[in-house]
Amino acid sequence: MANPISSTIDFEKDGVQHGFLQAPYSRNDSAWGSVMIPITVFKNGDGPSALITGANHGDEYEGPIALNELCHRLHAERLQGRVIVIPAMNYPAFQAATRLSPIDNLNMNRVFPGQAKGTITPQIADYFSTVLLPMSDYVLDIHSGGKTLEFLPFAAYHELEDKGLQDRCEAATRAFAAPYYVRLVEIDAGGMYDSQAESMDKVFVSTELGGGGTTSTLTIKAAKRGVHNFLVHAGILQDDPISPGHASVHLDMQQDNTYIFSRHNGLLEPCVDLGVPIQKGNLIARVYSYERNGMAPVEYHAESDGIIMGRHFPSLIKIGDCLNVIARINPA
Amino acid sequence: MANPISSTIDFEKDGVQHGFLQAPYSRNDSAWGSVMIPITVFKNGDGPSALITGANHGDEYEGPIALNELCHRLHAERLQGRVIVIPAMNYPAFQAATRLSPIDNLNMNRVFPGQAKGTITPQIADYFSTVLLPMSDYVLDIHSGGKTLEFLPFAAYHELEDKGLQDRCEAATRAFAAPYYVRLVEIDAGGMYDSQAESMDKVFVSTELGGGGTTSTLTIKAAKRGVHNFLVHAGILQDDPISPGHASVHLDMQQDNTYIFSRHNGLLEPCVDLGVPIQKGNLIARVYSYERNGMAPVEYHAESDGIIMGRHFPSLIKIGDCLNVIARINPA
Amino acid sequence: MANPISSTIDFEKDGVQHGFLQAPYSRNDSAWGSVMIPITVFKNGDGPSALITGANHGDEYEGPIALNELCHRLHAERLQGRVIVIPAMNYPAFQAATRLSPIDNLNMNRVFPGQAKGTITPQIADYFSTVLLPMSDYVLDIHSGGKTLEFLPFAAYHELEDKGLQDRCEAATRAFAAPYYVRLVEIDAGGMYDSQAESMDKVFVSTELGGGGTTSTLTIKAAKRGVHNFLVHAGILQDDPISPGHASVHLDMQQDNTYIFSRHNGLLEPCVDLGVPIQKGNLIARVYSYERNGMAPVEYHAESDGIIMGRHFPSLIKIGDCLNVIARINPA
Amino acid sequence: MANPISSTIDFEKDGVQHGFLQAPYSRNDSAWGSVMIPITVFKNGDGPSALITGANHGDEYEGPIALNELCHRLHAERLQGRVIVIPAMNYPAFQAATRLSPIDNLNMNRVFPGQAKGTITPQIADYFSTVLLPMSDYVLDIHSGGKTLEFLPFAAYHELEDKGLQDRCEAATRAFAAPYYVRLVEIDAGGMYDSQAESMDKVFVSTELGGGGTTSTLTIKAAKRGVHNFLVHAGILQDDPISPGHASVHLDMQQDNTYIFSRHNGLLEPCVDLGVPIQKGNLIARVYSYERNGMAPVEYHAESDGIIMGRHFPSLIKIGDCLNVIARINPA
Amino acid sequence: MANPISSTIDFEKDGVQHGFLQAPYSRNDSAWGSVMIPITVFKNGDGPSALITGANHGDEYEGPIALNELCHRLHAERLQGRVIVIPAMNYPAFQAATRLSPIDNLNMNRVFPGQAKGTITPQIADYFSTVLLPMSDYVLDIHSGGKTLEFLPFAAYHELEDKGLQDRCEAATRAFAAPYYVRLVEIDAGGMYDSQAESMDKVFVSTELGGGGTTSTLTIKAAKRGVHNFLVHAGILQDDPISPGHASVHLDMQQDNTYIFSRHNGLLEPCVDLGVPIQKGNLIARVYSYERNGMAPVEYHAESDGIIMGRHFPSLIKIGDCLNVIARINPA
Amino acid sequence: MANPISSTIDFEKDGVQHGFLQAPYSRNDSAWGSVMIPITVFKNGDGPSALITGANHGDEYEGPIALNELCHRLHAERLQGRVIVIPAMNYPAFQAATRLSPIDNLNMNRVFPGQAKGTITPQIADYFSTVLLPMSDYVLDIHSGGKTLEFLPFAAYHELEDKGLQDRCEAATRAFAAPYYVRLVEIDAGGMYDSQAESMDKVFVSTELGGGGTTSTLTIKAAKRGVHNFLVHAGILQDDPISPGHASVHLDMQQDNTYIFSRHNGLLEPCVDLGVPIQKGNLIARVYSYERNGMAPVEYHAESDGIIMGRHFPSLIKIGDCLNVIARINPA
Repeated sequence: MANPISSTIDFEKDGVQHGFLQAPYSRNDSAWGSVMIPITVFKNGDGPSALITGANHGDEYEGPIALNELCHRLHAERLQGRVIVIPAMNYPAFQAATRLSPIDNLNMNRVFPGQAKGTITPQIADYFSTVLLPMSDYVLDIHSGGKTLEFLPFAAYHELEDKGLQDRCEAATRAFAAPYYVRLVEIDAGGMYDSQAESMDKVFVSTELGGGGTTSTLTIKAAKRGVHNFLVHAGILQDDPISPGHASVHLDMQQDNTYIFSRHNGLLEPCVDLGVPIQKGNLIARVYSYERNGMAPVEYHAESDGIIMGRHFPSLIKIGDCLNVIARINPA
Repeated sequence: MANPISSTIDFEKDGVQHGFLQAPYSRNDSAWGSVMIPITVFKNGDGPSALITGANHGDEYEGPIALNELCHRLHAERLQGRVIVIPAMNYPAFQAATRLSPIDNLNMNRVFPGQAKGTITPQIADYFSTVLLPMSDYVLDIHSGGKTLEFLPFAAYHELEDKGLQDRCEAATRAFAAPYYVRLVEIDAGGMYDSQAESMDKVFVSTELGGGGTTSTLTIKAAKRGVHNFLVHAGILQDDPISPGHASVHLDMQQDNTYIFSRHNGLLEPCVDLGVPIQKGNLIARVYSYERNGMAPVEYHAESDGIIMGRHFPSLIKIGDCLNVIARINPA
Repeated sequence: MANPISSTIDFEKDGVQHGFLQAPYSRNDSAWGSVMIPITVFKNGDGPSALITGANHGDEYEGPIALNELCHRLHAERLQGRVIVIPAMNYPAFQAATRLSPIDNLNMNRVFPGQAKGTITPQIADYFSTVLLPMSDYVLDIHSGGKTLEFLPFAAYHELEDKGLQDRCEAATRAFAAPYYVRLVEIDAGGMYDSQAESMDKVFVSTELGGGGTTSTLTIKAAKRGVHNFLVHAGILQDDPISPGHASVHLDMQQDNTYIFSRHNGLLEPCVDLGVPIQKGNLIARVYSYERNGMAPVEYHAESDGIIMGRHFPSLIKIGDCLNVIARINPA
Repeated sequence: MANPISSTIDFEKDGVQHGFLQAPYSRNDSAWGSVMIPITVFKNGDGPSALITGANHGDEYEGPIALNELCHRLHAERLQGRVIVIPAMNYPAFQAATRLSPIDNLNMNRVFPGQAKGTITPQIADYFSTVLLPMSDYVLDIHSGGKTLEFLPFAAYHELEDKGLQDRCEAATRAFAAPYYVRLVEIDAGGMYDSQAESMDKVFVSTELGGGGTTSTLTIKAAKRGVHNFLVHAGILQDDPISPGHASVHLDMQQDNTYIFSRHNGLLEPCVDLGVPIQKGNLIARVYSYERNGMAPVEYHAESDGIIMGRHFPSLIKIGDCLNVIARINPA
Repeated sequence: MANPISSTIDFEKDGVQHGFLQAPYSRNDSAWGSVMIPITVFKNGDGPSALITGANHGDEYEGPIALNELCHRLHAERLQGRVIVIPAMNYPAFQAATRLSPIDNLNMNRVFPGQAKGTITPQIADYFSTVLLPMSDYVLDIHSGGKTLEFLPFAAYHELEDKGLQDRCEAATRAFAAPYYVRLVEIDAGGMYDSQAESMDKVFVSTELGGGGTTSTLTIKAAKRGVHNFLVHAGILQDDPISPGHASVHLDMQQDNTYIFSRHNGLLEPCVDLGVPIQKGNLIARVYSYERNGMAPVEYHAESDGIIMGRHFPSLIKIGDCLNVIARINPA
Repeated sequence: MANPISSTIDFEKDGVQHGFLQAPYSRNDSAWGSVMIPITVFKNGDGPSALITGANHGDEYEGPIALNELCHRLHAERLQGRVIVIPAMNYPAFQAATRLSPIDNLNMNRVFPGQAKGTITPQIADYFSTVLLPMSDYVLDIHSGGKTLEFLPFAAYHELEDKGLQDRCEAATRAFAAPYYVRLVEIDAGGMYDSQAESMDKVFVSTELGGGGTTSTLTIKAAKRGVHNFLVHAGILQDDPISPGHASVHLDMQQDNTYIFSRHNGLLEPCVDLGVPIQKGNLIARVYSYERNGMAPVEYHAESDGIIMGRHFPSLIKIGDCLNVIARINPA
């Protein structure tokens, strides 16, 4: 079965087009309704194609802000090639301000390569896998921590079997020029957009640029600069890269002890902030059992040296929630 | 009708008691259930009484963290007088991680003096008005911005008709030693816990210590220090005050132009961060209409000089939401 | 306590102003949010004031359509006096496409005179009672049947003790020039906007202009024409009345047997359509008990002669739902 | 304001009438809908009037079963006087199988004397207070434990200031001939139907006849026999009382230690069953904290001698839930 | 795995049987519950079999009304062959008055051929594909527009590769004698009941007979007459066809510009009614952005000549909703 | 794809370990959250392995109570071999006190063998099929009736093609020593845990030990004794079996007429209790149509001789609900 999503724009036409990806969506309050995902295509002559997305998870905002601004500001004349921009990939989730799609409760980044006859989320994924990725050379997917996680702002590439592709991804990641950059080793990359793009030999860069369901001028600046630099690096935007004014710090997520999970429900007191270096054994958090007073809190200690790279954002925590991510700083 | 809430502790007994305020609550899944609000009373001999609360709004966390820690750590021997601690005043909201009570959807800070025969929230308020406030001399209510607002960390007192009381409140506020302190002019204080306490001639201090539904080591430290200093100031805790190592900055919320409300729905790009000084006319935010690409964002500019003292925390904003609070810095 | 709603416009200024009634509304997803009700004021010199509203119930649409069009089209120069237009009186219900407010589940037309310290719906009612009605002379409230009822299009006035006021209301009702007009005898008018306006000696006209949660070109035309004619009749709009091209039919809702209520749950088969004359004993509807096949339907017969003036719109019906309203046609 | 509820039957007519109490209820899915509460009146000549109800709480079933059977079976000829039967007093709750009304979330037995202009539950209460109770002499309200409590089957009367009325109530209670009977001392009877009836000098009997949201042939038999005997005792039903074949056991709910509340969340293991005699110190229940294995359960012990008269029915329990009710057996 | 649905009737027995299709459905409020779909079988001797259904979408009512009436009225003696009637194919949706099943949120007309081990909706579809369709020769599925669409009343057949089957379908469609009839070209018929029946070589007729979640005497009459005529045409019902008194109008849904989709959220003002002929360029609708007053509405114009054959029914519309369907009238 | 669930314990280590099965679960309120299912492993040297579970359906409590107690009480020294205990197999359902998982609304006992890439419930099933069952020899799954069914307490084994396995299962079932035991003939065992275990040649015993969402001391005692005896029978627990003091009664569920389904909605009056012998034609229940009074109830009669072995627990019943299960008592 063919993917039911259609596009209101012509990907081969020069100039700037703002339109929609239209996915038919029959629902109780509109029998012949649609999910309409905003899309913009900038094209000027021949050249490489870049595909840039935000809100793969619907509660991550640096991407949508930088990309809405880009759609409003960018002129096609400055380009050589094509830029496809979708500020909110999981648009139903973005509208609902939730991580997962409110329609099928699915995580966009776990359903790739997607399914043409599936529910909305795998339908969108299938449209990326079969229509948008094939016409792209450079792919940038801008994540943040969302409402429940917060990260140091970083760009990332994956360790890949194809070392040539890995090198090209690393180069593009470094070009993004986020405050931090990371080489990721995924144990199980099944269902990720990243893996789908990489398996199709695309230069792929991902990011985590903050979190908590909010933004700051710093993280927005990192996103805007990164998009600019990524397009310059791809040879599409005819401009100079923007320097962040400092070198990116290289972080390493070693396999063991990187993820600290809470084994208690309660009220979370962080004892170390994001970006602070720690040593094995340091107290990193306390969890209070708030249903009665006077109980001793449970204490969590670092199980390795490193830096607090990610943290559980809400102040209430449940058994099994990721409390902290601890990374190692690589020597330059 | 008498207030149906009972206490499992004896307010007149020396020592440390951890217990509950028990409010009968018949619900579909427990016909003879109760709301059980944790409470601790520390008492040692004669002396003034302090009443300290957190989570008046259920999604504000510096108070509950500092007070859970206090309940676990404090010994009665160090006191002269009595300390009543309720880490989560609107306990049902705190459990649900929401601002308002999930039981009756009410804002605890708008139902005072409460109602003995009302739903749970005004019942709790009535218990404070008729039982807890009458036995207290010093009252501290620790707020933060909650999940949807973020503030510079400040303690505050109100402009009152009774200038003697106002002076005592200001002194206690300054003793709290938060990074900022504020004199508040409420236009309509109807229904607030603050006004109820002040009308009963209590020395009352309120705070806003951060927000976003999370905490940092800095805001927790401010809360713990403030509680300590407040109790020392009240003459109950026999100890020295803790110095923050810097002077508190005095902010003023002049009547006009302090609150900037959004008149658009959309995606919010903050252009100035919390704590940054601004001048009239400065761009403070952009709001993008995200349902289609390529539209010019609406721009909001400061209507007066000042400092960004509060901000809308989520990245999506609706018509009528408070976008920013702008204060003036008073000369020392 | 003063009503917490404020207006962003100046009711005394000449010209056209589009703004909001802003009602503070603290909710879990925006601590300092507001309900923002669109309002427009047209004013030109001295003269009478008219107050025109739609969506008193949130699922009634002829009013909002005619009034949005009016706000866009009308120029102040054509007026002598003032026109205050609120296209959606129960704006939260209108946004939600429901009859009752989604915030407090209340029926706007049963909470008058309202309550300044109540929830949103009685707060809005109180603002009408204390601010908007006192500054108005002519009041028009455009209703339709909503999603669950459908009516012949009519304008109506009430039988009042003050016969002088009743005559002025009847004159304004006839000026509206709807296809039908009705003199209403309310048994219990407690809580209605109508009664509040009448008790304040305002010339008040109400309507029912269709229903089913939809509109047609005919009912919209009736609404637009009626608004025009009402303003001309009030002496505010300096223009000629628009003739509907036919005389209005006068209907009478005699006390007994007017309302037919269903005493069965089931699937409703209407046997007579809206506007059809019937005689006592005529079959008007069948109700099928759809949970098993082969059962005889229950039949409902007219208990008096008349015309089908209103009907239950959805095809499923419950015990106690109003099945039909039967009126008598008055001789001209 | 008059109570908006009307009745479809004539309380003064001889014979059997089945009809409805009709309460107007405007809701989003039926603008002119109603709550229709089934009612039956049996009348034969002059004599006393009895008012018999079930489902004051919507999840209690012995009453509705016995009264539906009564409505189907009873003939007016056997009577001298009048019997008004409402099998489900809180009919919306009964339909929803919940304790509280799904419309306004209120407990029928805490809103008396009711309110004519309130929401549905206090409207129904007001109709009882102003219409049904005034025309009645004998009042029987059949309760059970509902879905979350289970009781030994008993009938009960209250200790009253008017000892003459108390004696008449006790006589009617004993006539009911339940397996157990109880003299109740209410600390706070505010809002109860019981108190309203007693304050109007009615002979009032209440019951608890089982629970758990189910029934058994024994508890249904107790309800049917009790209704029969109550009507015979009242002199309305011209028949002999039915003997239960055993004497009722007299239970006493002494003030202290009668109610055992859980102070822990967890999985409840009852260690003594309903009706079993216990001694102070006996283990009555264990509560397991099920979120991790291997923890010692919390143990609850009897604080007085007695018999397990009531118990928390569900196997999960929350802090503040009533775990057990312990009564004393009075010597015959 | 075999389909778990069983039938309580014997499809091979002569006479009239009313029963159920029983689908086991374990749910939280009934561990061993079932979905019970009413079904009736009329049979008299040998002859063709017809399968007639309504409520394929749960909010479409002409089918259920005509078929409930048929089940109550039809006698087997008038037949030669068999008629299987299921008034509500998606019975759970019909009970809930929603388009999609409330159990699995699925659209019955997109899950064919179904799945024996799937959720309820594909289980029902599989029962049709494997049990009911194989025993049928003529298949009629009565649709309407549902709560959110409204159509001119028409019967329809599909353009099929098998021209012989297409001719037989067209003949049956014309025999139905609806006011309009249509030849449909489906671009993607995947998952439809129609395609499943056609692929099994059944004479298949579909309809759209109104909409809005309501009915009129006219659309009900069209449904009843159509069912009668369809059974006569099939040679099963031994009777004369009923003439509608007018010829059916033949409509054509040409590929381009037939469907007009809204690209704006707002309040919909229809400018042309259903059944009205239009020319390219005519104004067909306005959409008002109701969140602030005074904005110009967006206008939609016809992109081709034709007749308004379908329309969005609710007065609020969202981006991507189908606003209008425009058909061409074929010369007779 | 490998199953994403990991275990925090080492299945090969001697001693007692309490830990969790951790299933990654990204949700809106915790991006990197997990479902944490408590598990305990007791191991002492070599010997057979037993796998014991409760709460396969989340509202069944005898299993979780007996197994929480076992985890707290048992010492590894008393064993020869290994015991793996999971008190709540469908832990999310157990937490929510529902039969089905609140996450994916699935019935754990219909999704076997499970799916590694599915939602949570089939993921857990897959972990059992691929990790836990392969390392086990004896498997015990403790069911009860849940909130909506109630059973006589019995243990059961299945009629299997492999008669040797069936004999070993029967021996283990009888060793359990419940008050009743049953040989089950499943018509469609697709998706059951039972079938999965049996297909892997495990000695499998299932139970039904009460129901209604509650427990009694008798059913808890049966569960504890059964677990003890099962482990003794398996040769793992070095102890004597506990005698129940009476012989188990052997019940037979003959194919026809065993399950009585309600064909009416209404209020259920049971006329025979659980465990009572009945004869064909006996009245077993009445169903009252409670929406109006005075209607004759529908009566259900036994269609065969036997004993009431199971019953619908709630007092309201729907069309298609299983009303009673009637078994035959086998001669000893």
